[in-house]
Amino acid sequence: MTIIAASEKIKHNVQDGIFVIQLDDAKSLNSMTGHDYLYLGHLMEIADRDSAVYLTVLQSSGRFFSSGANVGNIGAMQSAQDENGELGKWLSEFVSRNLFVTHVFAKHTKPIVCCLNGPAVGLSAAIVMLCDVVYAMNNSVYLLFPFANLALVTEGALSVTLPMKLGYNVASEILTLARPVTFDQLNGKVVTRNYNLKDTQEFNSQVLQDLKRATGDLHKESIPGMKRLLQRSVLDQMKRANVDEVNDALSYWVRGLPQQRFREIKSKQRIHKM
Amino acid sequence: MTIIAASEKIKHNVQDGIFVIQLDDAKSLNSMTGHDYLYLGHLMEIADRDSAVYLTVLQSSGRFFSSGANVGNIGAMQSAQDENGELGKWLSEFVSRNLFVTHVFAKHTKPIVCCLNGPAVGLSAAIVMLCDVVYAMNNSVYLLFPFANLALVTEGALSVTLPMKLGYNVASEILTLARPVTFDQLNGKVVTRNYNLKDTQEFNSQVLQDLKRATGDLHKESIPGMKRLLQRSVLDQMKRANVDEVNDALSYWVRGLPQQRFREIKSKQRIHKM
Amino acid sequence: MTIIAASEKIKHNVQDGIFVIQLDDAKSLNSMTGHDYLYLGHLMEIADRDSAVYLTVLQSSGRFFSSGANVGNIGAMQSAQDENGELGKWLSEFVSRNLFVTHVFAKHTKPIVCCLNGPAVGLSAAIVMLCDVVYAMNNSVYLLFPFANLALVTEGALSVTLPMKLGYNVASEILTLARPVTFDQLNGKVVTRNYNLKDTQEFNSQVLQDLKRATGDLHKESIPGMKRLLQRSVLDQMKRANVDEVNDALSYWVRGLPQQRFREIKSKQRIHKM
Amino acid sequence: MTIIAASEKIKHNVQDGIFVIQLDDAKSLNSMTGHDYLYLGHLMEIADRDSAVYLTVLQSSGRFFSSGANVGNIGAMQSAQDENGELGKWLSEFVSRNLFVTHVFAKHTKPIVCCLNGPAVGLSAAIVMLCDVVYAMNNSVYLLFPFANLALVTEGALSVTLPMKLGYNVASEILTLARPVTFDQLNGKVVTRNYNLKDTQEFNSQVLQDLKRATGDLHKESIPGMKRLLQRSVLDQMKRANVDEVNDALSYWVRGLPQQRFREIKSKQRIHKM
Amino acid sequence: MTIIAASEKIKHNVQDGIFVIQLDDAKSLNSMTGHDYLYLGHLMEIADRDSAVYLTVLQSSGRFFSSGANVGNIGAMQSAQDENGELGKWLSEFVSRNLFVTHVFAKHTKPIVCCLNGPAVGLSAAIVMLCDVVYAMNNSVYLLFPFANLALVTEGALSVTLPMKLGYNVASEILTLARPVTFDQLNGKVVTRNYNLKDTQEFNSQVLQDLKRATGDLHKESIPGMKRLLQRSVLDQMKRANVDEVNDALSYWVRGLPQQRFREIKSKQRIHKM
Amino acid sequence: MTIIAASEKIKHNVQDGIFVIQLDDAKSLNSMTGHDYLYLGHLMEIADRDSAVYLTVLQSSGRFFSSGANVGNIGAMQSAQDENGELGKWLSEFVSRNLFVTHVFAKHTKPIVCCLNGPAVGLSAAIVMLCDVVYAMNNSVYLLFPFANLALVTEGALSVTLPMKLGYNVASEILTLARPVTFDQLNGKVVTRNYNLKDTQEFNSQVLQDLKRATGDLHKESIPGMKRLLQRSVLDQMKRANVDEVNDALSYWVRGLPQQRFREIKSKQRIHKM
Repeated sequence: MTIIAASEKIKHNVQDGIFVIQLDDAKSLNSMTGHDYLYLGHLMEIADRDSAVYLTVLQSSGRFFSSGANVGNIGAMQSAQDENGELGKWLSEFVSRNLFVTHVFAKHTKPIVCCLNGPAVGLSAAIVMLCDVVYAMNNSVYLLFPFANLALVTEGALSVTLPMKLGYNVASEILTLARPVTFDQLNGKVVTRNYNLKDTQEFNSQVLQDLKRATGDLHKESIPGMKRLLQRSVLDQMKRANVDEVNDALSYWVRGLPQQRFREIKSKQRIHKM
Repeated sequence: MTIIAASEKIKHNVQDGIFVIQLDDAKSLNSMTGHDYLYLGHLMEIADRDSAVYLTVLQSSGRFFSSGANVGNIGAMQSAQDENGELGKWLSEFVSRNLFVTHVFAKHTKPIVCCLNGPAVGLSAAIVMLCDVVYAMNNSVYLLFPFANLALVTEGALSVTLPMKLGYNVASEILTLARPVTFDQLNGKVVTRNYNLKDTQEFNSQVLQDLKRATGDLHKESIPGMKRLLQRSVLDQMKRANVDEVNDALSYWVRGLPQQRFREIKSKQRIHKM
Repeated sequence: MTIIAASEKIKHNVQDGIFVIQLDDAKSLNSMTGHDYLYLGHLMEIADRDSAVYLTVLQSSGRFFSSGANVGNIGAMQSAQDENGELGKWLSEFVSRNLFVTHVFAKHTKPIVCCLNGPAVGLSAAIVMLCDVVYAMNNSVYLLFPFANLALVTEGALSVTLPMKLGYNVASEILTLARPVTFDQLNGKVVTRNYNLKDTQEFNSQVLQDLKRATGDLHKESIPGMKRLLQRSVLDQMKRANVDEVNDALSYWVRGLPQQRFREIKSKQRIHKM
Repeated sequence: MTIIAASEKIKHNVQDGIFVIQLDDAKSLNSMTGHDYLYLGHLMEIADRDSAVYLTVLQSSGRFFSSGANVGNIGAMQSAQDENGELGKWLSEFVSRNLFVTHVFAKHTKPIVCCLNGPAVGLSAAIVMLCDVVYAMNNSVYLLFPFANLALVTEGALSVTLPMKLGYNVASEILTLARPVTFDQLNGKVVTRNYNLKDTQEFNSQVLQDLKRATGDLHKESIPGMKRLLQRSVLDQMKRANVDEVNDALSYWVRGLPQQRFREIKSKQRIHKM
Repeated sequence: MTIIAASEKIKHNVQDGIFVIQLDDAKSLNSMTGHDYLYLGHLMEIADRDSAVYLTVLQSSGRFFSSGANVGNIGAMQSAQDENGELGKWLSEFVSRNLFVTHVFAKHTKPIVCCLNGPAVGLSAAIVMLCDVVYAMNNSVYLLFPFANLALVTEGALSVTLPMKLGYNVASEILTLARPVTFDQLNGKVVTRNYNLKDTQEFNSQVLQDLKRATGDLHKESIPGMKRLLQRSVLDQMKRANVDEVNDALSYWVRGLPQQRFREIKSKQRIHKM
Repeated sequence: MTIIAASEKIKHNVQDGIFVIQLDDAKSLNSMTGHDYLYLGHLMEIADRDSAVYLTVLQSSGRFFSSGANVGNIGAMQSAQDENGELGKWLSEFVSRNLFVTHVFAKHTKPIVCCLNGPAVGLSAAIVMLCDVVYAMNNSVYLLFPFANLALVTEGALSVTLPMKLGYNVASEILTLARPVTFDQLNGKVVTRNYNLKDTQEFNSQVLQDLKRATGDLHKESIPGMKRLLQRSVLDQMKRANVDEVNDALSYWVRGLPQQRFREIKSKQRIHKM
């Protein structure tokens, strides 16, 4: 029985107690299908259950961290016939996947370190906001939450993580006006170090080397021990937000509103303003 | 665009501001497929949005209120090939549906009156526990939560509603030992009136007549107004429980454990002890 | 500077560390004007601040504990001209008073013992539900929450105390159908002892004597000490409910809906069904 | 039946789904009487109920955003005879009004954009802190919370919004020492953009133009949709704070302490240190 | 390195996935020293960590379940000299032990079944209230919470479990008047079955046999799985209550008040009224 | 009866309603034994109960604010024989003390002003994070939380205060990598003013003088009044964190892990990386 077919776009390995997951589809800017997000969540669960792992590191490749949901994939889902109607289709294609990947990240018991090599968009950007430590490759990184441009609402527990990490008013403006989150807004709040590098591969290996050196002498068990203490104050709100967000968004999908706007994005009739 | 294909087994009508939903498949003891549960949830949303509706009434037919998930349907889902593996299949078939129907009942803003004509099992019994007012046809009604017998855990926010409505210790014993909840345990806590009738149709129409008479002179707007005030203390916990329950259960489905036990139930190798 | 003019209808005294407040207007069935409720709240605050007081006892007189808001008084408020309009008037006459008396009862740090000699209605009945210990004179006592009959919603944090003390489904039916709460429903949940007496004066003095005897040997400081521990789990929900209830109700008052129904009650065109 | 008499000092209009409220009493520095605050709250409720409105914008005029409670008005209230005493008077004049305006802002379901043209003081400054997005006209704006100087405590749910938006220690020092909040402290936390303008009218129209351009292509329904998700994490705490704050402050009013200090402010015997 | 020296008065064994702990000091009525409570907590932790255990059963011996804290032991602690004063002594002797044993019971992840063979007093009775399922040997069992008689306040998270399981008003009266909780009050709420037996040994083995039979066919992993879901709604409140209770009680111990009253109990000058 | 023997290393006095506590053991860098922490907590309780006190000020002496737990003292505790084993010993020596001092700081009802003259380490640094206002002597101050280096987890409710005051991601990195918190990270968040001084005595008296001048005209009662309002949103989470932290850490102490690492620190085999 296969739990989930491996995605060729996502690699992983374990090094000295550090579980490394890498998005490895630079040519699509690491866009993700629904299946890719599930597979990412599945790897997170393997890392979580492995008692030898004390840190989980998320890396990417190429220019973008991840350009978000694969627009072609949404088109395919949309044209698929479902004799039972739109409700069941979007529960399967949207609600169940977003809920799962968000839940798996929110409840992860090891600190999650994100190597942010470039821009991240949509649900992928929400995942960056769910990470505990974020390092930036340089000051060109940004996050984009274009939900109001797509006839959607917040995903990935963003309605909790965004105000918690960037401040309530900053989060409100970003979401209301579908504004990008610049490096300057992230710095010192979400991003705790800027590596000032240009090559993603060099950045990824530098971060890993730094993490190994910094934690080499530490008592590894203390590290997830403190993560579990930190997350207890916020986990219930994240769970509540997750279920509210997917169910609120469902009514937009059932009416076909985001689908229409994804089509416009694909055909360049609509852009995300920067 | 069809939101959801109607289920022939579930009827509905509106009478003087009362939205009536009826399970109408007496010969299967009102067993429910995944699609039936979605359609039930869909009707609840229609009732919720209709500003002329001040009460939602849930009725059934025949001997059972509902025997729960259709065992044959689970078998069909199980044998269906999904090239992407078990995780995606059970996210679609289990997580997304349970989450949706539970969420829709938990956030419903009109009082939900349940006409409990007979036994209810599993998720259907959890739905009874999500209703605000429950009337019993007679003292033969009971609820059955056989999750431990099926290699599952609580569904339908039961981990909140069962201790809240029956008491923490009573709930613990029922779940731990997969014991039925008898009429005596329900009476005065979940059930507020026993009609002492034998015919479901007579029971259903008697309840409706009583509700119309009792609310005839009342200011209708006050009724959902008070429901919204009552639910504010408990709704966040129900949402949190819902997302915890579906995600905890997922690991059992992915390993094939409940599927095996449903097969044993179907072939009479396994029974629910009463 | 007078904090509040004394109401002749409400007496009080202190006996051996017990602060006794008595509603003493038997001929009006202890109906209460807005000013009476404020004065009652004011006495509660005096009891709370007095470090020699370890118990607060609420007594009444005659046949009713309290028939609730004085209907004539509401009529007078209604006809009063307020050049600034209805919003300011009902904020003063309804919101501020209900909020204050509910807050004062909810945060009181001594156990409140209620001697329930007869029926209580509306806000007065909500106050009974805010007491920590309730003794019944006999099995004729009942509570009446006719909010749906008056175009109102719950008051006095009832949306929290009623489900907490009587059970969620019982509370839902009582409010939805504006049903009285009978002695049998109160017994063992709200009422912990039935004195089986017929004379209110005898009942009041018997309860006081029993309380003095039962606590005579106890360490008095422990008694409010445990009240403060008990209330910590529920106080925040009561505060939240209080502000929600008064603000939700305000929109009914501003539209004149309860005023109309109070007029019908006064002229016997409308009755509370029992 | 008049809900509330219009205040001549507060204007409003609706433009393309944006509800604009303007404080228009530059010569009094937009000081507010109790009635003005109620009228402002009333306008907020109209904006909230209008389904065509997706944004609410708060503007002012002249040099100050608002100098807070009208000192002359407080003197008038104080000298008014109330035969029932101080408790009822200050429940009407203070508790009910502060509670209402705070509640209405806290539960507002559209993003509230504040055009902060100059200083704001007291309850008016608390209202600025309740807005979701704040734009500054220039770096001369500041907020003043002189509660300790006035023998008062926090108002307008500030005990929640101030630590949430400025940080716990910054909020503590501001309140403990009655210090102003400077532009530098607001910038990047409460204020997300400095327009660097000198004319209030130009500032107001520039903000409106920018909002229309930025949201022109967006799906309007998503905007309040995300506001509702954002506020769910904080609304209960704001409600709890609101009821605590008004009731804690009441004891100061009943003893005449802030009244005395407002008199000293009026007669220039007391100043707010900057 | 010894974690804790075994107490001869407490036995334990594991049978088919059931971890059985037995208080075995019938001649002292199973009174407990501070060390006994620690050892009991230590055994609970062993049961919790053992992944083969799905149920934890607490049994006793003789006439009493447990008469509570050993009075002689308290006398010994009291007379012990501690050069650093009373604060350090009672932090060690009272706070740290009560906190630990309460925490260990509250966070236990297997259902705890209590075989209540007779009366339980004080902290031991609080432990009974922390169990998930309680079976009574007969209708002579009772619980005694004589905190007000001992110049103490609630222990063992009772300020949460008592109102949650017996109802708020019942809990208030029991604590305020130091009244015993009778079998009739426990039945149907805390106690879910009365075995109607007279011999403790027979009772203990009958319960074990029933548990094995009832769970024989069940999927064992589901049982702690559902316990974890049930406890999520209440665990944070129990933790908060635990820390409040031990710190509130500390001030009584430091002043020597309970010590004096334990001496009076020992010398029969003081009794617990029944 | 002595509550607690005075520590010679900690002085205190009261000046014009300001309660000043001073760590006065410059030559040990103000390292603290378990008894010192208790005595500090005891002084905080005296300040809290004194109704004439409206501010509590924490000062130190010499180069360090406090170098944290006295390493020699831990060695002494470790070698002490406890016939009852490690559990009881570390409950007394670690759990009860950390719990007490954290609880006393968290619930303190006057604003706590910390004069941070130099570095603070471990539990002492956690105490700095529990203060409401922190002034820095100069930009050489820092905090060190070397828990992962010591085989420990967060103490002093840091799992709540650190993310609340420094941001979630900053807190995560600090704890995960045992990194110091620099002045730049503290400034504007924890520290609200940098005095740019070099002499601790001058710094201490300058702060006191500034506090007296700034509060001279204020209504003193308002100051603790606002502290109580501010702390209501966070106190329950701090209590929950406190009990979780001490109990989670206990398992490390019982296994001897931090003891071993404190020995290595003492013998210079292990250092805290800066």
